[in-house]
Parts: sequence; structure tokens; C-alpha cells
Amino acid sequence: MSEPRRIVIIGGVAAGPKAAARARRLDPHADITIIERDRILSYAGCGLPYYISGMVDDRNDLMATPIGVLRDPEFFAKVKGINVLNETEALGIDRKTKEVEIRDLNTREISHLLYDKLIIATGAEPVVPPIPGRDLINVVQLKRVEDADVFRAHMVDGKCPNVVIVGGGLIGMEMTEAVTECGHAVTVVEMQDQILPMLDREMADLAEKRMRELGVTIKTGTGVQEIIGDENGEVAYVVTSDGARMPAQLVLMSIGVRPSVSLATDAGLTIGPSGGIMVNEYMQTSDSDIFAAGDCAEKSCFVRGTRCFLPLGSVANKEGRVAASNALGRAERFPGVAGATALKVFDTNVGRAGLTAAQAEELGIPAMTATVSGFDKPHYYPDAKPVVVKLVAERATRKLIGIQGVGLGEVVKRVDVAVTAMTAGMTVDDVANLDLAYAPPYSEAMDILIHTANTLRNQLDGLVTGMTSLELKQKLADGEDIFLLNVVSPEEFAETHIPGSVLICLGEVRERFEEIPRDKPVVMYCKTTLRAYEAARFLSGQGYDNVSVLDGGMVAWPYETEGEA
Amino acid sequence: MSEPRRIVIIGGVAAGPKAAARARRLDPHADITIIERDRILSYAGCGLPYYISGMVDDRNDLMATPIGVLRDPEFFAKVKGINVLNETEALGIDRKTKEVEIRDLNTREISHLLYDKLIIATGAEPVVPPIPGRDLINVVQLKRVEDADVFRAHMVDGKCPNVVIVGGGLIGMEMTEAVTECGHAVTVVEMQDQILPMLDREMADLAEKRMRELGVTIKTGTGVQEIIGDENGEVAYVVTSDGARMPAQLVLMSIGVRPSVSLATDAGLTIGPSGGIMVNEYMQTSDSDIFAAGDCAEKSCFVRGTRCFLPLGSVANKEGRVAASNALGRAERFPGVAGATALKVFDTNVGRAGLTAAQAEELGIPAMTATVSGFDKPHYYPDAKPVVVKLVAERATRKLIGIQGVGLGEVVKRVDVAVTAMTAGMTVDDVANLDLAYAPPYSEAMDILIHTANTLRNQLDGLVTGMTSLELKQKLADGEDIFLLNVVSPEEFAETHIPGSVLICLGEVRERFEEIPRDKPVVMYCKTTLRAYEAARFLSGQGYDNVSVLDGGMVAWPYETEGEA
Repeated sequence: MSEPRRIVIIGGVAAGPKAAARARRLDPHADITIIERDRILSYAGCGLPYYISGMVDDRNDLMATPIGVLRDPEFFAKVKGINVLNETEALGIDRKTKEVEIRDLNTREISHLLYDKLIIATGAEPVVPPIPGRDLINVVQLKRVEDADVFRAHMVDGKCPNVVIVGGGLIGMEMTEAVTECGHAVTVVEMQDQILPMLDREMADLAEKRMRELGVTIKTGTGVQEIIGDENGEVAYVVTSDGARMPAQLVLMSIGVRPSVSLATDAGLTIGPSGGIMVNEYMQTSDSDIFAAGDCAEKSCFVRGTRCFLPLGSVANKEGRVAASNALGRAERFPGVAGATALKVFDTNVGRAGLTAAQAEELGIPAMTATVSGFDKPHYYPDAKPVVVKLVAERATRKLIGIQGVGLGEVVKRVDVAVTAMTAGMTVDDVANLDLAYAPPYSEAMDILIHTANTLRNQLDGLVTGMTSLELKQKLADGEDIFLLNVVSPEEFAETHIPGSVLICLGEVRERFEEIPRDKPVVMYCKTTLRAYEAARFLSGQGYDNVSVLDGGMVAWPYETEGEA
Repeated sequence: MSEPRRIVIIGGVAAGPKAAARARRLDPHADITIIERDRILSYAGCGLPYYISGMVDDRNDLMATPIGVLRDPEFFAKVKGINVLNETEALGIDRKTKEVEIRDLNTREISHLLYDKLIIATGAEPVVPPIPGRDLINVVQLKRVEDADVFRAHMVDGKCPNVVIVGGGLIGMEMTEAVTECGHAVTVVEMQDQILPMLDREMADLAEKRMRELGVTIKTGTGVQEIIGDENGEVAYVVTSDGARMPAQLVLMSIGVRPSVSLATDAGLTIGPSGGIMVNEYMQTSDSDIFAAGDCAEKSCFVRGTRCFLPLGSVANKEGRVAASNALGRAERFPGVAGATALKVFDTNVGRAGLTAAQAEELGIPAMTATVSGFDKPHYYPDAKPVVVKLVAERATRKLIGIQGVGLGEVVKRVDVAVTAMTAGMTVDDVANLDLAYAPPYSEAMDILIHTANTLRNQLDGLVTGMTSLELKQKLADGEDIFLLNVVSPEEFAETHIPGSVLICLGEVRERFEEIPRDKPVVMYCKTTLRAYEAARFLSGQGYDNVSVLDGGMVAWPYETEGEA
């Protein structure tokens, strides 16, 4: 029997353990070692906000198998035959001698590990901008389980009534929910003019509106100038770029993360344009014996046709598997990512994949969008809840290139179907005819995804012209002369409408249409989209040539309203 | 201005109204008429079980728009400019003169309607086998809203403690839930040896097991010999093929439905092999001016490569849209169906699409399957629930050709992703690398669909051999000499295991493997699949060459168990 292959894996959170497990299953005789700087390994990093909120009570649940066995070094040794060196730092990689220099963080002893194949899975680290006061006590980040322990202790000791969260991205929003659930007041400070930059502005504004309704203070377009401490060196105030001085006993810096690549850089491996370790589709670095997987490795975004950074546990796990397969001599390709992201903020589901309209524009891709609001199930089914879905298609090819969804109802199923469609290069016509599984507990007969795809087809075919809520809001703010026509019932109109609207119920449009001017732009809307579309088609038939429909209607309108509601 | 086009549509439930609405939007000037035999039109037929159970309280909800406007003839006229002739029967189609003969069912007057394009959307009708006693009072079917009214009246009058449902298909199962929810005892009688014939037997057996746990009596492999009435001509007993005489005050015949094609047949249109009206991909019949859509039209099943009958509201709506587009001169193709079906039975979600293993075998397609049990979300997330997913791939091409899912957790999302993948002709390798949106409230980092696809890849690659629960059950019943090895913990073993199993915990397999015989088949299992797979790979490494893993483990085992649970 030949010498067992030596597989060394640096990093023990997500991609690393997955690669180790795959390597073991492919080769029962290989000598497999995981090096991990921390004590705790193989934990569900994405579960940390739920541990902090107390929804997940026992932190061990985050690092246990489904049947409750802790994934500690003993577990890896006994159950999987994998060596784990935790509390051990990888200091450097010698590519000539094919060895990794390591230091035991308890004994400080330095030693060397030989490898035949090396897999780097060093993850990512939080970005902390050079804000004065960032080193004060209780200015924290969230990466490791220990960080979450510290945060959770703050949540239960009742000594931080005011929490400032810097950064309105995914982690910032999940933590906003966690902290609010614990009964503390949250202010979110975000430099950009919207939260959740992975969404188009008006979609993000829908989520923001809901968070405000639930009592969160959100300051967009606002930076942090300084964090001021008290006499004990503990945080006391956050000073923002608008000059406000906000009391805070705890500040979470969640601006973002960057790939941890210093080991790779020091070893002379090529770093890609996004800052991650460059890999080919086999997850192989510029050294053919070294692979990289997870947050530290650059991703190929197939919708965008570019390389990007995308720190997600789902991608890390898949890449870990692919890296191990190739390290063990199987030729397995990773096709890249669609940029799919999901998140729950309070009662609102948010999902997206591919390109937003803004991203398509940035990349110079002529695109068209449709936004539809509706229910995730038939309206008559008791727990049907509203959702807003936006699709983006490339004009020239009609290919679906992006989806976004926000709502109290189910959103992520629609995103996953769109991801699969985008992976296959489907057009919106293909998507509109997908034979999705239907029964009233799960969807409408024409699912909202299909309905949105049909609306986008109608737009691509010139049957209807849409206008986003953001565009309308800006036109109204600019004082443009628009005839804003609401075609709902008088009761609905009394409840809520956009200031400046005229009401003609859909049932009366056929009789009263001559009240609608022909010499200025008409923007029609209803509660969702259907009635406005119906009316717009009728007006087109009557020769009106400047009619558009407000995307998603009132349900998707996050801006000023008037009415009794 | 030219004469408006005359579009006549026969059938006003699903495909018909959809076609009419699409036609109106494409041509504001067309003269559009819907002919419907019943009084009520454009209703959600799939919602009837929920109306019967009282979950949907107001029957008008089933025929109203989301904002509560009844879709009656006045609505169609006023809002959509569509003529509806309800309570009107279409008697015949004269293809030469291009007219439909109709009779007003109130006045009995006969008249004729000229068409330029005709769309037939006559739906389907329940099959009632020639069982003696089928005409007794309270032997009912469920098709129209009026049928549901009658059924609901029975549910509330308290005079039918025993209900027999004949037929264990989709409608039969939904109605079993509805009737049980109303507090009546249900017995399901099904001729085949399983309920839900759209699933492989062992997957259907999982749903059946759960229904039995919830108090439903299910008699499979049993026909109805006779229905016996009392002195009032009301049903009193059902006599089954096994000689049992079951008291019943209400009998639902839900054996299935067949396409309603008599009008088409009489007009000489071609009927396809499945019994539906033959249409091309433009939904055009053998007469180029006549289209058909919905349950009456034959479907093309693209996974199977055959023509089939598939009565589903989701398909009907899409076809109605396509038929109208083509009737109005746009060339729009309908790509066919994947056979996606979803249903909720009590707390269990069931979904399927493509081919089952049994169907693939019937069609002579060499296939391989994998079945995995797990959670729909990370196990640590509070409302994570178990699901069992089965995938079917074509061996030669590794293409995904089928999915089935059963469980308390979310199933239909996985089916919809698989539908999209099958539509695109993806392999299981493609599916395993899909960038599905991940966050703990929605899925595991490696979603169960991806996990199942990876398991199937491992099987296709010869890394592991699976065995279905049905196969194992049969082998055990046949007395085959199998070493049945459970690798769970002693506590789990004590709780539940398959009779005849030996226990060696996964953590001890590396030390104790020599207790496992090399001279007979070893079947390994655990609670789900992971530990058994781990152990199986280890044994393979030790030279064992007849090891298989029980698909989905105990969670997916619907048959006899022993233990404390």
C-alpha cells in the first residue's frame, strides 16, 4: 500500500471542515489535518444573530450535528478520522518544501506540517474603518462565537438601552432585529442613501419603511464621524456626519468584511481583482497543489461575467467540497455564483440574485424591469401574505438577469427558482411558462414569479410601460406635470393614495376616460398592478400614447401617502 | 376601422377567463364572448376543499378578485369589456360556417355565435365507475361550487359521522383533510396498493403513515364492490372488495377526472392518445382557427417525452394565455409540463415533478435515485422541520428527471427549483452547485436539495450504494440474510430501530468494524443518512464490497419499527 496522501486544510469554520469531510469520504486512507486558530470550529456563523437574540438558546447548537453531537476535535478524530489542530495558527506556507509553519497558541511551540495538497479556507474578517474612538470598550464586531458571547452578555445585562449599528448591510440588518427583539433601541447608521445595497433603492426602501414602522431608527446617507467614550473608556456617544450626537452603550461595526488572504499573499499566490485569492473553476490557486475555498477565495459571478467577493456560508460549503474533490484528483468544476442572498428582518423576507437594475446600468447592460405586488398564496387562503417581486431582463436577449423580492410573504422560493433559471440562461418567456407546483397552500395558480415574468414580457413587447416608485417620487418632487390616476374603489382611495392623485374606478374608466388628458403623461396605479394595467391597455386602445403604470402599485410604494390609513 | 375580431371561448372556469382577459389586453377592440354552462364562473376550483372545511368561510372569496370584487358577468362586461353568456350550453361547433350553436339554459332558446377564432376550455369531469349504488343519495362528486355547497352542508349538519372517500389521489387526500377537520371519521378506499400514485410507493407510504397517525383509516389495494342504501335511497354502507361492510352516510367518488371533449369530438377535431384534445405547441387544434386550453387539452410532458392528461389550474391558466396570444396572431409557444404537483395533507407537505423511479422503469429509462432526510432549515433554528427528498436521474446523462418530497417541513420550494432545473435539462451535478439563496430562516447552508443531489452524484460515481426502504422491507420479508447495521447512539437505538438491527455507534465503527461480517450484504442506516454514509465509506476503505445505505434512514422509514418510541 502506498503512503497515505497528506491533505492540509487551513481554516476550520465552513469550507475547511466541508473539504476535510469530502476528502475523507473520497479517500479513507488519506492523512487529513485541519488547522484552526480559534478553539471553536465548524460552527454555523450565520446563526450567530439568532444565538444573540436568544432564539437559539444553547450556543452548542451552532456547533453540533443535527443529533446534538459537538463537532470538536475529538469528534473529528473519532468519527471522521480527521486531525484537528485548533488554537493553532498557520504562520506561513513554504511552497517549495510544501509545508505549513504552525504555532500552537497555548504552548507557543512552532512546528511544520508537510502537505501533498493544501486547501486554504481562511475566511474573511470584518472591515473596521479608521473612525476615532473605534477602540473604545463596547465598540464590537461580530465574527466569532466568542464575539457573539460578548454581545449576548450585553443583551441580557440591561445596561445598553441604546445600540448603534454602523452599516445597513445583511449582518447589520439581522443584528438590528436581534437587538430589537432583546428590547434595546437600535439606530442604524448607513453611509449610502439606502440600506441593503444588494437591492435597488426602492426595494430597499420597502424594507426600510417596515423597519421604521417597527420602531427602528435608520439614518441613511450618514457616516460616523467619531465615537466618544466616557471616563471608563466605554462608548458613550456616536457622532454622525450630520452633527447628531447619539447616546450609545454598545456600537456594532458591521460595515462589511474582506477576504483573509495574508497567508496566501505572503506565499506569493495570485490575488484577484476583488481582493480574494484567485482560483480557477477547480478552486485551484496559481499554485496547482494549493486550493482555496470559501470567503477567502474570489468568486466568478456568472450573471455579471465578472469576478467578485461574496462571503456566504452556502457558497463556502459547495466550494469546500469542490476543492477537496479536485485536491484528491477528481475533476470537478464549480460553475460560479449568481449572487443569491436571503435575509429575514423582523417579519419581512428579503431575497435577491443576479443584477439589480442599478448594477445592470453600471455594467452598461441595456435592461428592462418589472415589479409586481401580490400575494404568496391565493388571496382567499387564510395566511396569504403580500410580496413585491422585481425582475430584471436583458433587453436584447430577453434573458432573466436579476430578481429581488421583499415582503411579509414567501420570497426566497421565487429567488431560488430565478437563480436556477439564470444559471440555465433562461429568458423571461421561459420563466413565465415554468410548470411550478401549485396548490393553494403554496402559491397562486399563476405564481407571482410567473405573473412578474409575464408583466416583464408585456413591457419588452411594448404592451405596457412601467415606472418605478422611485422614478415617480422623483418626478413628483421635481414638479413634473403628470396626470396621476388611481383606478381603485372610492373606499380604497379614502384609505390611502399618493398625494396629487385623481380617482376614476376601473369600472368607470370605459365611460369616463375622456376626463383623462391626452396632452400630458398619465401614470396609472391601483393597489397592486392588475387594474392599472387593465386601464392602461384600454387607454392605449383609445389612442393615448403616454401612459405608464406604477410598478407594484400602492403595495410597493414606500413613500409619502395620504388617506385615513 | 376594420371589423372587430370575434373571439369565442367555450368554458368559464380557469383557462377560459384567462384567455379572455389576455385577448382583451392584446386587442382593445376585439369582440370577446365566454360561454359557460354554469351560473358561476371564474372560480378557484382548487380552493373548494378549503371552503368545505370552513378554512375559507365565504364561498364568494373563491370567485372574487383579491380586493373582493365578484367576477360575475357584470364584472366582466364593465371592467373588462368581455361578454359572458353563463347558464348557456354550447351544443355544437360548425367549423365550416365558423359558428357555435348555443342554448340558453333558462329560456331554452337556441342561437348561433359566429367566431373568427374559437378557444375550447371545457375542462374535465369526474370519472364515476359503474359501481352498483353509485346513484344513491349522498354519493357525491366534487367539481363545481354547487357540489361544494352540498358537501359543506353535510359537514355542518352533523348527520354523517362516517365518510368514505373512494380514491386516494390528490383530491381524495385534500378532502380527507377537509372532512377530518370538520370532525367526521374518514375511510379512504384505494384500488392501487398505495395512495398518491404520483409518488413512488415508499414516499406515498410516508404520507400514508402520517395520515394513519392522525386517525384516518386507509384501505389500499381495495376496491368498492357496492354501495348499499337505506329505505330512503340514502347511502348506508360501502362494501369493499375484501368483503368489509363499512357504514357511511356520505361517499365521495374521487377516482379521477377525464377531459371533457365531446364538443371537440363531435366537431371532428383530433383527440390525442391521452384522451385530451390534440394541440400543437401554440395550443392550436387540428383546425387552425380553433384552440384548446386547460384540462380538456392534451399536454406534452417534456421530461417523459410523451403526451399526457394533467388537470391542473396552474397549467390551465398558462395555456389560456398562450392560446389567446396565438388566436390574436402572436406566435407564442407553450413548452409543455413537468408534471409538477403539490398538496398539503394535514401537516404534511407533498410535492413531485418529472418521473418517479417506477415511471422511469416503466418507460425503460435506466435511472438511479437518492433519498435523503433532513431538515428544511438548520436544525438549530426553532421551527426547522423534517423533510424527505427523493431525486431521480437518468444514468447515462446524469440529467435530473424527477423529484419527490414529503415532510412536515417546506417541500415545494425544492420541487420548484427541480422543475426549473429539469426544464433546462440540468444534470444532478448542475443542481448540486446551484447558488440557492441561504439564510438560517430559509434553509441549511447546504440545502437538502443540494445535499440530495450530492448523494445522487456519489451513487452515480459508485462511491455509495443506496437501498430504498421498500426494497429493504421486501428483502427482510423474504428472509434474505442481511447484516442490518444501525450506527446511531444507544439512546437513539433504544428509542426506535428496524427489527433485527445490530448497533455499533459511528464513533466505534473504526474500532469495532471486525464484528461486521464480510460474507453477507451489509445494510447500514442511521437517523437520516449522513452517519451511515460515513460508516459505509469507512467499510469500503477496509475492503468490504457489499455495503449499502438505507435511503433516508429512520426518518424516511415508514414500516415496522421497535423501540420505546
